[in-house]
Amino acid sequence: MTAAADAKAILTRLGVSDAVWTGDLPTRSPIDGSSAGSLVQATPDQVEAAVARSVEAFKAWRRVPAPRRGELVRLLGEELRAAKTDLAMLVTLEAGKIVSEGLGEAQEMIDICDFAVGLSRQLYGLTLPSERPGHHMRETWQPLGPVAVVTAFNFPIAVWAWNAALALVCGDPVIWKPSEKTPLTALGVQAVFERAVARFGDAPEGLSQLLIGGREIGEALSADPRAPLVSATGSTRMGKAVARTVAGRLGRSLLELGGNNAMIVTPSADLEMAVRAIAFSAVGTAGQRCTSLRRLIVHESVAEALTARLVKAYATLPVGDPRKDGVLVGPLIDEAAVTGFETALSDAVTQGGQVLVGGTRVEAEGTYVTPAIVRMPAQTAVVEHETFAPILYVLTWSDFDQAVELQNAVPQGLSSCVFTDSVREAEAFLSAWGSDCGIANVNIGPSGAEIGGAFGGEKETGGGRESGSDAWKAYMRRQTQTVNFSADLPLAQGVKFDV
Amino acid sequence: MTAAADAKAILTRLGVSDAVWTGDLPTRSPIDGSSAGSLVQATPDQVEAAVARSVEAFKAWRRVPAPRRGELVRLLGEELRAAKTDLAMLVTLEAGKIVSEGLGEAQEMIDICDFAVGLSRQLYGLTLPSERPGHHMRETWQPLGPVAVVTAFNFPIAVWAWNAALALVCGDPVIWKPSEKTPLTALGVQAVFERAVARFGDAPEGLSQLLIGGREIGEALSADPRAPLVSATGSTRMGKAVARTVAGRLGRSLLELGGNNAMIVTPSADLEMAVRAIAFSAVGTAGQRCTSLRRLIVHESVAEALTARLVKAYATLPVGDPRKDGVLVGPLIDEAAVTGFETALSDAVTQGGQVLVGGTRVEAEGTYVTPAIVRMPAQTAVVEHETFAPILYVLTWSDFDQAVELQNAVPQGLSSCVFTDSVREAEAFLSAWGSDCGIANVNIGPSGAEIGGAFGGEKETGGGRESGSDAWKAYMRRQTQTVNFSADLPLAQGVKFDV
Amino acid sequence: MTAAADAKAILTRLGVSDAVWTGDLPTRSPIDGSSAGSLVQATPDQVEAAVARSVEAFKAWRRVPAPRRGELVRLLGEELRAAKTDLAMLVTLEAGKIVSEGLGEAQEMIDICDFAVGLSRQLYGLTLPSERPGHHMRETWQPLGPVAVVTAFNFPIAVWAWNAALALVCGDPVIWKPSEKTPLTALGVQAVFERAVARFGDAPEGLSQLLIGGREIGEALSADPRAPLVSATGSTRMGKAVARTVAGRLGRSLLELGGNNAMIVTPSADLEMAVRAIAFSAVGTAGQRCTSLRRLIVHESVAEALTARLVKAYATLPVGDPRKDGVLVGPLIDEAAVTGFETALSDAVTQGGQVLVGGTRVEAEGTYVTPAIVRMPAQTAVVEHETFAPILYVLTWSDFDQAVELQNAVPQGLSSCVFTDSVREAEAFLSAWGSDCGIANVNIGPSGAEIGGAFGGEKETGGGRESGSDAWKAYMRRQTQTVNFSADLPLAQGVKFDV
Amino acid sequence: MTAAADAKAILTRLGVSDAVWTGDLPTRSPIDGSSAGSLVQATPDQVEAAVARSVEAFKAWRRVPAPRRGELVRLLGEELRAAKTDLAMLVTLEAGKIVSEGLGEAQEMIDICDFAVGLSRQLYGLTLPSERPGHHMRETWQPLGPVAVVTAFNFPIAVWAWNAALALVCGDPVIWKPSEKTPLTALGVQAVFERAVARFGDAPEGLSQLLIGGREIGEALSADPRAPLVSATGSTRMGKAVARTVAGRLGRSLLELGGNNAMIVTPSADLEMAVRAIAFSAVGTAGQRCTSLRRLIVHESVAEALTARLVKAYATLPVGDPRKDGVLVGPLIDEAAVTGFETALSDAVTQGGQVLVGGTRVEAEGTYVTPAIVRMPAQTAVVEHETFAPILYVLTWSDFDQAVELQNAVPQGLSSCVFTDSVREAEAFLSAWGSDCGIANVNIGPSGAEIGGAFGGEKETGGGRESGSDAWKAYMRRQTQTVNFSADLPLAQGVKFDV
Repeated sequence: MTAAADAKAILTRLGVSDAVWTGDLPTRSPIDGSSAGSLVQATPDQVEAAVARSVEAFKAWRRVPAPRRGELVRLLGEELRAAKTDLAMLVTLEAGKIVSEGLGEAQEMIDICDFAVGLSRQLYGLTLPSERPGHHMRETWQPLGPVAVVTAFNFPIAVWAWNAALALVCGDPVIWKPSEKTPLTALGVQAVFERAVARFGDAPEGLSQLLIGGREIGEALSADPRAPLVSATGSTRMGKAVARTVAGRLGRSLLELGGNNAMIVTPSADLEMAVRAIAFSAVGTAGQRCTSLRRLIVHESVAEALTARLVKAYATLPVGDPRKDGVLVGPLIDEAAVTGFETALSDAVTQGGQVLVGGTRVEAEGTYVTPAIVRMPAQTAVVEHETFAPILYVLTWSDFDQAVELQNAVPQGLSSCVFTDSVREAEAFLSAWGSDCGIANVNIGPSGAEIGGAFGGEKETGGGRESGSDAWKAYMRRQTQTVNFSADLPLAQGVKFDV
Repeated sequence: MTAAADAKAILTRLGVSDAVWTGDLPTRSPIDGSSAGSLVQATPDQVEAAVARSVEAFKAWRRVPAPRRGELVRLLGEELRAAKTDLAMLVTLEAGKIVSEGLGEAQEMIDICDFAVGLSRQLYGLTLPSERPGHHMRETWQPLGPVAVVTAFNFPIAVWAWNAALALVCGDPVIWKPSEKTPLTALGVQAVFERAVARFGDAPEGLSQLLIGGREIGEALSADPRAPLVSATGSTRMGKAVARTVAGRLGRSLLELGGNNAMIVTPSADLEMAVRAIAFSAVGTAGQRCTSLRRLIVHESVAEALTARLVKAYATLPVGDPRKDGVLVGPLIDEAAVTGFETALSDAVTQGGQVLVGGTRVEAEGTYVTPAIVRMPAQTAVVEHETFAPILYVLTWSDFDQAVELQNAVPQGLSSCVFTDSVREAEAFLSAWGSDCGIANVNIGPSGAEIGGAFGGEKETGGGRESGSDAWKAYMRRQTQTVNFSADLPLAQGVKFDV
Repeated sequence: MTAAADAKAILTRLGVSDAVWTGDLPTRSPIDGSSAGSLVQATPDQVEAAVARSVEAFKAWRRVPAPRRGELVRLLGEELRAAKTDLAMLVTLEAGKIVSEGLGEAQEMIDICDFAVGLSRQLYGLTLPSERPGHHMRETWQPLGPVAVVTAFNFPIAVWAWNAALALVCGDPVIWKPSEKTPLTALGVQAVFERAVARFGDAPEGLSQLLIGGREIGEALSADPRAPLVSATGSTRMGKAVARTVAGRLGRSLLELGGNNAMIVTPSADLEMAVRAIAFSAVGTAGQRCTSLRRLIVHESVAEALTARLVKAYATLPVGDPRKDGVLVGPLIDEAAVTGFETALSDAVTQGGQVLVGGTRVEAEGTYVTPAIVRMPAQTAVVEHETFAPILYVLTWSDFDQAVELQNAVPQGLSSCVFTDSVREAEAFLSAWGSDCGIANVNIGPSGAEIGGAFGGEKETGGGRESGSDAWKAYMRRQTQTVNFSADLPLAQGVKFDV
Repeated sequence: MTAAADAKAILTRLGVSDAVWTGDLPTRSPIDGSSAGSLVQATPDQVEAAVARSVEAFKAWRRVPAPRRGELVRLLGEELRAAKTDLAMLVTLEAGKIVSEGLGEAQEMIDICDFAVGLSRQLYGLTLPSERPGHHMRETWQPLGPVAVVTAFNFPIAVWAWNAALALVCGDPVIWKPSEKTPLTALGVQAVFERAVARFGDAPEGLSQLLIGGREIGEALSADPRAPLVSATGSTRMGKAVARTVAGRLGRSLLELGGNNAMIVTPSADLEMAVRAIAFSAVGTAGQRCTSLRRLIVHESVAEALTARLVKAYATLPVGDPRKDGVLVGPLIDEAAVTGFETALSDAVTQGGQVLVGGTRVEAEGTYVTPAIVRMPAQTAVVEHETFAPILYVLTWSDFDQAVELQNAVPQGLSSCVFTDSVREAEAFLSAWGSDCGIANVNIGPSGAEIGGAFGGEKETGGGRESGSDAWKAYMRRQTQTVNFSADLPLAQGVKFDV
């Protein structure tokens, strides 16, 4: 059975109607290139209608008490638990992730639901003292409105869940535009969501809508003033376009864009742990995570030893069908990704790089490549650019401040890490003059964030934060409220104005 | 002595060098149209140099402990206290505010300094539990970098202080581009700031720089990737331009744009209080506050009584030189404002409005007008537009939900209020389906916020928040930090990946 | 079948061993006085062993990541959902609550589990800036140790859950001493907890232990220095004893003691709503809630009308077997409670009171009484005392400040409310000079708190807070941590000390 | 001139009336044993009157807006800045601290005022979503009432300021009972406070009252139900007595009691820094800080080297008149302290200890001793006891877990630290299974906390927290508020109760 047939069977089991297959958006599994057919795409009129429906849903949903909204998300969590292996397998089949990673992504959906249920009784604003007698002040967080969610192929289900779980609890309907490379997982998720809605009972129609199709859908949503928030994950190029469009109407963007994530290795690092962390974060998801490790910045005293170990580990990396036990590296998402991989390696060599291991296409028919390690003489142009493929550039340093400078000297600012057992180095890395990224780890690779923390990055990564901490605030509007319950009307700052 | 001469004398007393007067930016007092001369404007090269200096200042300032940075702001507060009347009088002379309002604005500067000093030992991030054994997580707020501050004529000094006090405590240098209509107050403030710096001792050069000049300076700052935050106050048109430019480089904007603020009056309102609140908020600063009251949405049962009282109060409003005791309405800022006032009134009449009182120019030579009340048959186009002048449109309602809908049916979302003694009405107004503004008051007019709350608005007001609450977070970047202090390397979400 | 037999059957179904019935603690259902036998009580040695086991459990549990601890609570929530009707019926059978209230109490257990699961990824401490260069500060919340939980008969299961769900997530084992009047519900809950533990897999032994028996167990736990926190619910007399004992060893008490809760009714109150709120809060649980309404403080202008309505409603209140459909008032817990009821009424009359309705024993054989309304001439001694029975004292007022003073002039400080549609009255009631209670409601009765808020009261209520908000902090210890990662050793406050 | 005469002159300069010297409480400077006379003590009637006055002050003060209350504290900060050297010198003269420490203590007063001013616009409660439609919830912090503050001789002025600055901002009057060993500093502080009050203008009488006298005053305040909070600093024995008395009336205690603070030194520690940190924290204030270092727990591999350095440093410690330049060790507070010092050393030797340096009385006439280092074979009884004198016990370890166990195996739980450059050791020390103290530092001694963090300790230290973070909450009562603004009356948890 082809990967595509497997995927189709899962969708059927999840209750997705066969009618979705009557369109013209081709689907394809990167595992074997198989296709289960083409999907119906949303027309401009349908996009328009979806937004209108979302506005109506918002008017009803914002009046539903947040803890009750949390109950829907709790039921969603239950349904996701029940459908976990199916959704995970869809991720494997459509995005090419290995099974463990597919399960991990499904687990993130579950985790964020659990977290959001708790939030549904929090969404804390403030009470605060007024400077005027007989007045009280508070700051309340209110529902915002329809949230457009644009997701990328590499986390085809978790990112929707990060956004939807919070948005729903916050009182906002969701309109989802998934990557055209991974519409099947989206269909699966939507089916699971509908189950939760059915159990919930009285949710307004259109609380979370799915719009399958191409870039023009994202553009329409970005331009629509009825969507006060556009949450977009993808490339920096896409992100800048969304940001400009949304800014032009004074809307709000939540952007999760490119990363160019580094690890600094210091002399006191536990090299055994570092090797494992590097392998997972540079090679996992075939280097197609936004948090994938792309730059290894090693102290000169341990560079040789570490590189040797890595080359050895890379040499035996099991590449292949991600469904198979033991495989750690699945396919790249498509042919363009392979081209990008090859071009980057070629550029790296031109720029003085030396490929230490990997860097070749492994199967004539598929999009499988062997992860590469490239020793670079300096942080050249290719290193400053995010190539969505398993290439790890190795740079060396002799002074810790210089290492941090190298780490910071790229346009992206998503994730970063240091391997060290030195308090001074670790804390300097985490200080105001340390890593300039949104995520900074010590003795952990740059990828694999927990949902409890805020996820996102600075600079060209776009500045958005999703998931834990107070990321929910992006989905609400805040209101400063002052109530005068006295019989006087004093003015702030002691201003006098008597008519 | 002309108002201009008064202003010049104050600047001299504050220590501003006479060299500033050798340029070509004309200055003018709206009180009497007098000018003290023309000011030197910053050249493009000077703007560039200022940003470069700010970047260097940032590198040093971010290493200074925040409580020590707070000490600079404390000294600034002391100097502002000492210079309060001078700065307030500059505001009066250059922006035309009455003395009490000028003092109020200066007081806001002082208040925000006091507040920021406290923040300098807070800037609280989070510690949070990791799902992995032997790991700890925290979220830390780090300094962001140079902050460009673009301010408007109507709050020529407070807005700088809101931004600067927080930015400085957060570790960020400031580059200030004041309105070309109010450069003198900016010069005065800069002189006071320099006094604080001198007492502080070891601040890096260029911690807060002043760039006098036109719109092109704001454009240059908006486009400069070295300024991660642009905080801009002004018109919605300006704001959209800034937002687009900053978004195009994935920077951060903090926008405080137009308001079109309403008051809903219900049958249970204390009309005596309402009249006073309306007069202050519609007429104060000659209707040139972003929070000025522009729309009065009155229950039909009290509309006549309230309107009658207002007309009576308006009829005797003392308009004139704002330095004079008893005057409550000073001049509009310039001739264009008078034109805007007249055009709006004319449009209103065309759209069915009836001018109940005021609406005329009062002095042939100046820019003084009599505040107007206009009864409107509906919320027509002119009512949906913010005219920066003392025009109050009156609309009526019979159903409370309808009143809230009227209040929300404009593009702007800054401030709003209701006058009522009904718990049900008051809380509905403050609920998720109530006012959609950033500020919502009960039995207080829409203007005159305290510095303890977050100040700003939704929709076309731009979404920014300044001053109190956690507005300081806009001036910092957050970092999610995870430290593995165990000897194992577990992955989040239970992912397995063993090389 | 007797109520006792019903209860026994449920316990068997829940998996409680028959061995528990071989002791000498008599059990009794207040519904019909039936007994299912006597229970085994914990001996002093067993108490000692339980604490020792708890200490060991703590050492293991505090190392389990909090989100993993949350997973146990999530499973507990699932098991509670599955056993909801059984547990609710046990509450009815053993405490005499009507079915809807029993279900409501079981729902509270479920709600707090959902809430605690969210907390398991929060338990937020702070990061904060140090005044010293190269230092960082944080405040972390750490597990505290074994928590002794002493509960009362009137909330025989919810209070354990409030404590246990938070304690477990916070890293603390629990030792539960339920009321000797309601050991059966405790056995049922313990069985459900064991199911969750079994599914969880690797919890340390003794995470939550149940100690059936009398007051001496509570005394032993209060005196034991190995239990850093004693959370006790019950009478003020009991609470003072616990407080003194725990204070003598510098332990921490969390006390939820007596309430003497009032409602102020103002002229603008919605009397229809008030009547319903009064009935539920004065009569629900037969007046045996710590938040039961005991004092009605009515404006003289509406006192007659309101009293008349109440008397009418009371006259037809269905008293009887709480299992029966339609019954709203079940039995008092025991004969002593009936005596207390009768004595209080007799005292009230002596002190000038007039019984308007109710006040009689309704069944010769049982402990059923008819809820009473007593008009009092003043707030006499009997009114200042909490009688755990359905007696409502009515007082009148003419001035709002006086009403608030009456409300505050009792030793207890748990719950309070006002019925009004006036913003001025409502907010004054909620102000610094308003109600002095831990709970203050507007247009809601004093009972029936949501789990999202902090629950507890001031003055003789004991000051403890359970359930929502940051009540979890009582179950942890906080640690202020400062890390010097510089190569210098500056002292705080600029102190110089050079050896 | 004697130290006593110096002190008297300062008091006169600060405006303290000579009438205070007409009593029978002897005063004495530990520097030279000189006395300036005896002070008037508060009679029981005066204590009673002070509490009554405080209750009245509370009724007025709680109605003053918190930011206005903050203005009083801001003025207090200004007056403290002006009187800083005088107050610091009083500390030196009366408590025997060296000048730099006296100035540091005065600086803490100033710092906490600055911090409290910021708090005066915060005192943040929460808004939170209700589960019921048309309801809103909030948690508000309200003023608590009169706060009794009992302070110890070793921080004769800072502890009052920590309490008073927060209490005043929170809306609470203060009643201060200073140590009978340091009444003069208290008189000085009171005079400075009165200056601030005079400038403030309209504070109620008796906002902060001073009661000079003995233990019976503290006992009276502890027992008085009108003082809802008793904040007491001193010995564990005193603390237990206060705790019991206050608990018996269900009041609230804030206790800062004994510490027995340790430093763990690991092989990677910077020994140079460690020596300096040890010297300051073990010898500063002549070992009479509650955070003084008393136990040094050194890895066996560095024990010899470290001890040798310490012995060398101790050998040349300048002991003597604390007013003299260069002196680092002043006198013990009185003869009893010297006896305690000598007894502890003698016990230590009996228990196997070896005095490596110091341990002798240095001046026949005074209370000066040479700081001692004692090598102990184990953590014997004397080591587990807090002796308020400069004795440092040295223990060794070979396994880090064992070191942490030693650190935790004393009854006190105030402060602790580790010197290490290992991330694993540092973070383990700060983890749930690390130090059990309220304060835990890395590469900093145990003393010298910043005011931004919460100050206080666990176990027999009493559990109180003062100064930064949310320590202010101890001075307020919290209220959970729910407002129903709908026309329905739903019950929480879905309970049905229809009369």
